[in-house]
Amino acid sequence: MSFPTVGVIGAGQLARMMVAPATELGITLKLFAASADDSAAQVCEFTVGDYNDLEAVLHFAQGCDLITFEHELVPQSIIRSLESHGVKVYPKADSFIYSQDKLAMREKMAELGLPNPRFEKYLGGAPTLQFSLIAKSPSGGYDGRGVWVINSQSELDALPTPLLLEEKLSFTREIAVMVARSPHGQASTWSPTWTVQRDGICTTTVTPVPELSDDLSIKASSIALKIAEGIDLVGVMAVELFQVGGEFIINELALRPHNSGHWSIEGSVTSQFEQHLRAILDLPLGDTSRTSDWAVMGNMLGGDYPDMYRPYLHLMARNPRLKFHHYRKEVKPGRKIGHVTLLGSDLVELRQEVDHAIDYLSGAIDE
Amino acid sequence: MSFPTVGVIGAGQLARMMVAPATELGITLKLFAASADDSAAQVCEFTVGDYNDLEAVLHFAQGCDLITFEHELVPQSIIRSLESHGVKVYPKADSFIYSQDKLAMREKMAELGLPNPRFEKYLGGAPTLQFSLIAKSPSGGYDGRGVWVINSQSELDALPTPLLLEEKLSFTREIAVMVARSPHGQASTWSPTWTVQRDGICTTTVTPVPELSDDLSIKASSIALKIAEGIDLVGVMAVELFQVGGEFIINELALRPHNSGHWSIEGSVTSQFEQHLRAILDLPLGDTSRTSDWAVMGNMLGGDYPDMYRPYLHLMARNPRLKFHHYRKEVKPGRKIGHVTLLGSDLVELRQEVDHAIDYLSGAIDE
Repeated sequence: MSFPTVGVIGAGQLARMMVAPATELGITLKLFAASADDSAAQVCEFTVGDYNDLEAVLHFAQGCDLITFEHELVPQSIIRSLESHGVKVYPKADSFIYSQDKLAMREKMAELGLPNPRFEKYLGGAPTLQFSLIAKSPSGGYDGRGVWVINSQSELDALPTPLLLEEKLSFTREIAVMVARSPHGQASTWSPTWTVQRDGICTTTVTPVPELSDDLSIKASSIALKIAEGIDLVGVMAVELFQVGGEFIINELALRPHNSGHWSIEGSVTSQFEQHLRAILDLPLGDTSRTSDWAVMGNMLGGDYPDMYRPYLHLMARNPRLKFHHYRKEVKPGRKIGHVTLLGSDLVELRQEVDHAIDYLSGAIDE
Repeated sequence: MSFPTVGVIGAGQLARMMVAPATELGITLKLFAASADDSAAQVCEFTVGDYNDLEAVLHFAQGCDLITFEHELVPQSIIRSLESHGVKVYPKADSFIYSQDKLAMREKMAELGLPNPRFEKYLGGAPTLQFSLIAKSPSGGYDGRGVWVINSQSELDALPTPLLLEEKLSFTREIAVMVARSPHGQASTWSPTWTVQRDGICTTTVTPVPELSDDLSIKASSIALKIAEGIDLVGVMAVELFQVGGEFIINELALRPHNSGHWSIEGSVTSQFEQHLRAILDLPLGDTSRTSDWAVMGNMLGGDYPDMYRPYLHLMARNPRLKFHHYRKEVKPGRKIGHVTLLGSDLVELRQEVDHAIDYLSGAIDE
């Protein structure tokens, strides 16, 4: 057994952030990219291709010891074909479906006895759930895409079916639990993270979740571990939860490294990116202890200024503890083009500094 | 101003470890490698060439915003030619000479009033210093190469001149201080590091230096800062010091990231590799605070087993906090092929764990 080669379908920022731990562990990373300009293709060996093209994906897989994903868009048919050709793929198609088909996910969570909102599969007519309700396209959609708040029958009639309908919850806040699991069944979670949202997009995260009791923290982690085992996860997964008082309701699953785990690069002994590699390679998992009291992460959203280098002069001088992660993606308004992380013990100060940094980077403020 | 491109002459493990912070900061890294198999060439864009070939180096430099080094072997004539062609090179030739010419270094330290051993330039005949003494080839040599302990005139006569002769010190231990300085003159040090040696090779480092008083720690850091300013350093530099009771004597300088600073990847808010990039780009320097009480680093030396992946199964399971850095260099007995780092608060346990890991990796023990 010598150093393995891991093939990643996708070459966005998640693949980009796998490069550092792969390099450290001596693991060779190869990417199946959509374009040579992709964020990760700029810093890693890659093949350009279409992940809907089975022959191209199979050819790519032949040069790798195993295949993983950094997004949910690869069709089940492609993943199953890889598996039937003897390619080792993690997460497996049978697991990955739950991050691709929201209806299948709801039914699986119900089968596992885990907390869903009330939901129904909708093919037309009058729904069982009362308005207002949430309608979701079963496949695709994140950051609010493919999800609608529906207040009336006429609004519902305007959407293409099938749909997943869910009750509209009044929740306290949204949190996420990152969990990793290996083929051996070893599993670990990180401290739950508060995902602070604005207009359906996560702007900042705070880890651990402030003012969450140990009991509730364990309850949230326990849900994530049960899902991981229940769907036979291999790799890392984000479990997004709605906190409703002292209860948690499952929102969505993402079977890959996730924005809500970016804090772990500096904030945990083992980052979600290193842990994903360890998990899919069936290596013993790393320690997920935090390295500080608090970790605050802020997403850099593109603004009006295309030059994202010059702000360093101000921001690095203002706070020498701020850690930057630029994805080198083309700047478009509202697009996630990077993130910053700050660790420390004074949460109020950390949040102020991260908010200042992301506002300054987007051009929302000049100072 | 947009994201710059940094060109590195050399593609060994030091360049390899620059890749992660360059990627995070969005800085493009290009390497001038000796071979496509070089440690860093496996994970970064590179050009193969001979650093003695001015035309090739100049051509490489034209695609970069500035040039830096990861070893001391690039001839002064090449660096000066780059500078005279208007290429921005950091460290500058006038500074870099002090890591290339040990005699020039001694004379400069004397000029700066900094603590040298007694030394002389030797061209033949009877030396002023008494035997036993240390003879050094003025240029080249590290890890004990180009350095001899000389006990008699006949031994001295057997060496080619010119030589740098130095008194043989009875020292308490060897320590190193990493220092960074930017063109603006901003400078920072990290906690001094104890470099534990075996047969003239550093096997492990312990940071901070155990049982070193605050006064002595400041004294050591102050020497490093004075040298940095005195030689107009830009970038990072290792200052190796002999501790002789309550005094420090300068041993050697390395104007580049250095083995004695590897602990800073996990053990400091800002690693030596990120700081080197910040310094040469004249960005504000990062915080060099430690992230834990102790950081212990151990060099993986090649042993009899070429498979360096399989040991993960044992070592990761034994200690999930251990951080691995494989350089993907061909395994040869005694060659540095990677390192491990462990952070924590129990120094005895940390040293035992790191010693076990490097012994296990070299095949010296089976368990």
